Amino acid sequence: MPQDSKHNLEILRHSAAHLAAQAILDLFPTTILTIGPATEDGFFYDVLPSTSFKEEDLERIEQRMHFFADQNLPITHKEISKQEARKIFGNNPFKLELIEKIPGDMVGLSQQGDFIDLCRGGHVHSTGLIKHIKLLGLSGSYWRGDKNNAPLQRISGTAFFTAEELENYLKQREEALLYDHRKLGKQMDLFSFHQEGAGFPFYHPKGKRIINTLIDYLRRLLDEQGYQEIATPIMLNDELWRCSGHYEHYKENMYFCLIDSKSFAIRPMNCPGSILLYNERPRSYRELPLRLAEFGLVHRHELSGVLHGLFRTRAFTIDDAHIYCMPNQIEDEISAMIKLVYQVFRKFEFEHISVGLSTRPDNSMGSEILWETATNSLKSALEKNKIPFKLQEGEGAFYGPKIEFKIHDSMGREWQCGTIQLDFFQPENFDLSYIASEGTKQRPVMIHRAIYGSIERFFGIILEHFKGNLPFWIAPLQVKLLTITDAQLPYAQKLFDLLKSENIRAEIDLSSDPLSGKIKTAQLERIPWMLVLGNKEMSQETITLRYRDGKQETGLSWTDLRALIHKNS
Amino acid sequence: MPQDSKHNLEILRHSAAHLAAQAILDLFPTTILTIGPATEDGFFYDVLPSTSFKEEDLERIEQRMHFFADQNLPITHKEISKQEARKIFGNNPFKLELIEKIPGDMVGLSQQGDFIDLCRGGHVHSTGLIKHIKLLGLSGSYWRGDKNNAPLQRISGTAFFTAEELENYLKQREEALLYDHRKLGKQMDLFSFHQEGAGFPFYHPKGKRIINTLIDYLRRLLDEQGYQEIATPIMLNDELWRCSGHYEHYKENMYFCLIDSKSFAIRPMNCPGSILLYNERPRSYRELPLRLAEFGLVHRHELSGVLHGLFRTRAFTIDDAHIYCMPNQIEDEISAMIKLVYQVFRKFEFEHISVGLSTRPDNSMGSEILWETATNSLKSALEKNKIPFKLQEGEGAFYGPKIEFKIHDSMGREWQCGTIQLDFFQPENFDLSYIASEGTKQRPVMIHRAIYGSIERFFGIILEHFKGNLPFWIAPLQVKLLTITDAQLPYAQKLFDLLKSENIRAEIDLSSDPLSGKIKTAQLERIPWMLVLGNKEMSQETITLRYRDGKQETGLSWTDLRALIHKNS
Repeated sequence: MPQDSKHNLEILRHSAAHLAAQAILDLFPTTILTIGPATEDGFFYDVLPSTSFKEEDLERIEQRMHFFADQNLPITHKEISKQEARKIFGNNPFKLELIEKIPGDMVGLSQQGDFIDLCRGGHVHSTGLIKHIKLLGLSGSYWRGDKNNAPLQRISGTAFFTAEELENYLKQREEALLYDHRKLGKQMDLFSFHQEGAGFPFYHPKGKRIINTLIDYLRRLLDEQGYQEIATPIMLNDELWRCSGHYEHYKENMYFCLIDSKSFAIRPMNCPGSILLYNERPRSYRELPLRLAEFGLVHRHELSGVLHGLFRTRAFTIDDAHIYCMPNQIEDEISAMIKLVYQVFRKFEFEHISVGLSTRPDNSMGSEILWETATNSLKSALEKNKIPFKLQEGEGAFYGPKIEFKIHDSMGREWQCGTIQLDFFQPENFDLSYIASEGTKQRPVMIHRAIYGSIERFFGIILEHFKGNLPFWIAPLQVKLLTITDAQLPYAQKLFDLLKSENIRAEIDLSSDPLSGKIKTAQLERIPWMLVLGNKEMSQETITLRYRDGKQETGLSWTDLRALIHKNS
Repeated sequence: MPQDSKHNLEILRHSAAHLAAQAILDLFPTTILTIGPATEDGFFYDVLPSTSFKEEDLERIEQRMHFFADQNLPITHKEISKQEARKIFGNNPFKLELIEKIPGDMVGLSQQGDFIDLCRGGHVHSTGLIKHIKLLGLSGSYWRGDKNNAPLQRISGTAFFTAEELENYLKQREEALLYDHRKLGKQMDLFSFHQEGAGFPFYHPKGKRIINTLIDYLRRLLDEQGYQEIATPIMLNDELWRCSGHYEHYKENMYFCLIDSKSFAIRPMNCPGSILLYNERPRSYRELPLRLAEFGLVHRHELSGVLHGLFRTRAFTIDDAHIYCMPNQIEDEISAMIKLVYQVFRKFEFEHISVGLSTRPDNSMGSEILWETATNSLKSALEKNKIPFKLQEGEGAFYGPKIEFKIHDSMGREWQCGTIQLDFFQPENFDLSYIASEGTKQRPVMIHRAIYGSIERFFGIILEHFKGNLPFWIAPLQVKLLTITDAQLPYAQKLFDLLKSENIRAEIDLSSDPLSGKIKTAQLERIPWMLVLGNKEMSQETITLRYRDGKQETGLSWTDLRALIHKNS
């Protein structure tokens, strides 16, 4: 069995979930099983135990899994009638509910040794293949993820084909826990969350500086690329959200207010505001492509249980843009966007980026020729930029094809960030038009695109990616000036003023600590550059530059330092 | 009678309202009168006519007012019993309602010729003194301003003591109508409002540039002044707003959402968020004064009838800051704030600023010594900065004294913008503390301050103040490069790149218009600087700089222009 495919890894992990269930029932026979799927990086099994499991039980269960793996039991699968299945799982209300939900008259059954489970299939051939496993945690869950249902316990773990892969994963996981952005956020005094608003981040001064730098950096690029920034309200009336379709499809995740007895929605997306602005006056073909960008604050409901630092919040800002263009402009626009996406991700030292192109699904809207033109434009733009991509046939939204970008971080994790989504629906829906050169009224194509995606989430991602050691250009405090004695303070002040004139975020350490203490403080604060200033430096008008990692450059002039600043900005 | 006091002007205008009512009843005897007060810049009378008045009627009414003024009728006032008043106004349900609401047994009655009106008094002695009058408009209103009540018609006008004052006012008013920011906003493509969200501005690209410039300018100053920028959620739970007192005192103006069946308020103010952030960890005296700034988006309900462009919106951003300090730091903090306020207002060419200091009211909280220390600090800071101010005894909020700044615009109007508000209440309320140098827990003082106030409103004010001709540094498009023929385009491009390197917002006019046409377009767009580039300029590497007002400077080198840019930025 080829071990490199994602599909096979899913099969292995789903098999590991069965193995975990077998071990659980062997040790705790009164446990009631529910479901045990593979996940992005492992598997879980949700169970209803007679007595709650404790962390200590995980080790016993894992040992038992190894015991059954060593027996190398064949795993078999067969189809049985629902009637028969109901008899087998008569004491398990969850499985009975599952049986009813499965279409048709037959259901799948898998077996390994004495252990049988309801299952649609997809397993390795024998338990002996499930060797490299690790149970990782115990948490609370609910039947079908709904907190009105029975509370369950979730046993999570992972499985790999080789010991080395498992070891790597566990090392990465440990590292990720060490550099959890929530931990770094507290250590570095960047942000906090408060019970008065779960899922709503509070940015402390240093965190806000980072957010501002993220926005300023992109704002400069957007200006160079001919985008125009707009700002639209964060709240608009329900009629608009009904028209855009968000009300019907997304209202469970939206928040609503009453104004003058009429219902308004806090925006979960920025497009309707952009569209109203586009539609504010007649547009000419001369204005196209019209690239309207908005750093738009949105609110989307998330269950309180899944809120997770900056990765999953209820309020976040999207670096949104909506491009209104003619069909024959799509390719150039997409090509420019792809370049921009790569430029931005590389600036943050993400070297490995995976790209997917999702094409026309069955239930699509829009003419065949529009889909073909558009999809070919996307393909061609990717090819011209020499970007390898995965063709995701039929996986586009019903209203247009899409390019998705996934960045790979320093700990080997994938994050879906950038998206470029073509939209044939909203231009129809809101009757968008432009006057073509020959004077006729035409329908523009709309492109939604984001690079960071949620700026909050991207902030969390780069914090972990850099393990808190943010590069010079984005660090909230970039330079700390450390004098050996107070005698060098005038020289430090002079350099500080020069740094300020270059818009560098700098600070003089005015404490009475010895140099070693000052260095230690700056290292704890993760300051990228320390300027060490003694009598020698002062008399020679030079600078000793000490980097965060301890490396030093001595004898730098201000001109040298200035050149280094420009190189790193 | 001294004509310079505001009080006397109010008396004159209230008398003019009576004169208007006299004229109306004389011409349209079946009209039912309601109330006729003086306003900030005139007066109005709300009436219920048998047949709706039209704009044409105003002139007739005004002529009749002059007729009664020429008769110089004495205006008398007496107190009568409510019983008698009920007889006199028996056919006027509005007046009858007013009579019931007046405390005591007696009410006032004024008389001039045959005309009598219910009135508590305060009139000039005879109609002959009401000479310089003008009726200005007809609009809809409701009895007691409540749209569930009877619809009325409002006749508005103004009155002055001298012809010159009236003439000046009418000229200013005409100018203000001409430069109404709503009109300029449309002409200059800066912002719009949409029925999907009344009172919520949509910023077009050029408007958003201005907003960004307003924020960037202040952000730089705040950084220099040791402020630290934060960002807190725009929505927090009701418990917090109950604790802060906003729920009790302000809930009619707040919007609410449900999250997980709990009520959350969209913030009408930014202070509670700042306070939560302050309270997030113990604070040391070493951190004080802690100056936390936030460009905070707030939502406050306004009746739809009073919404007025950017002057009165339902959503706006406050350039807020909350300073947490020790009582002995108040004076220095206030002094620095006063300097900052003046620096900012002068940057926008507001030369005349009125300042008021509001002191302890009767129902105040906080110790006498704290009030005394604080009020003396405010006074002393104003005096040290040589700022003349008006002492508004007893007009402070119950929780602390306040300094208010009013700017006077180019059309002679006053706008209350900056405020510095001391707050002894919230630190108690939220149990704010810091650890003093001797290790004891102490209560900090909190200062709320804003300079622009609402950035939206300030944007509207400067638009009108500059009559649309925004100064170079804040104009959305600062420079337009106009070539005489296409031959100079390479030179224009070179200058454009140089301008961009200085972060100047510039554009090359690529149209095929002749120079005169290009100049006209740039003037209509109100571009501050045009660079006129012909063959002579190109060959000599010089620039002809044409200002918006038509003045020109020729033979400038890039170095000259760069110096001018720095001078004007």
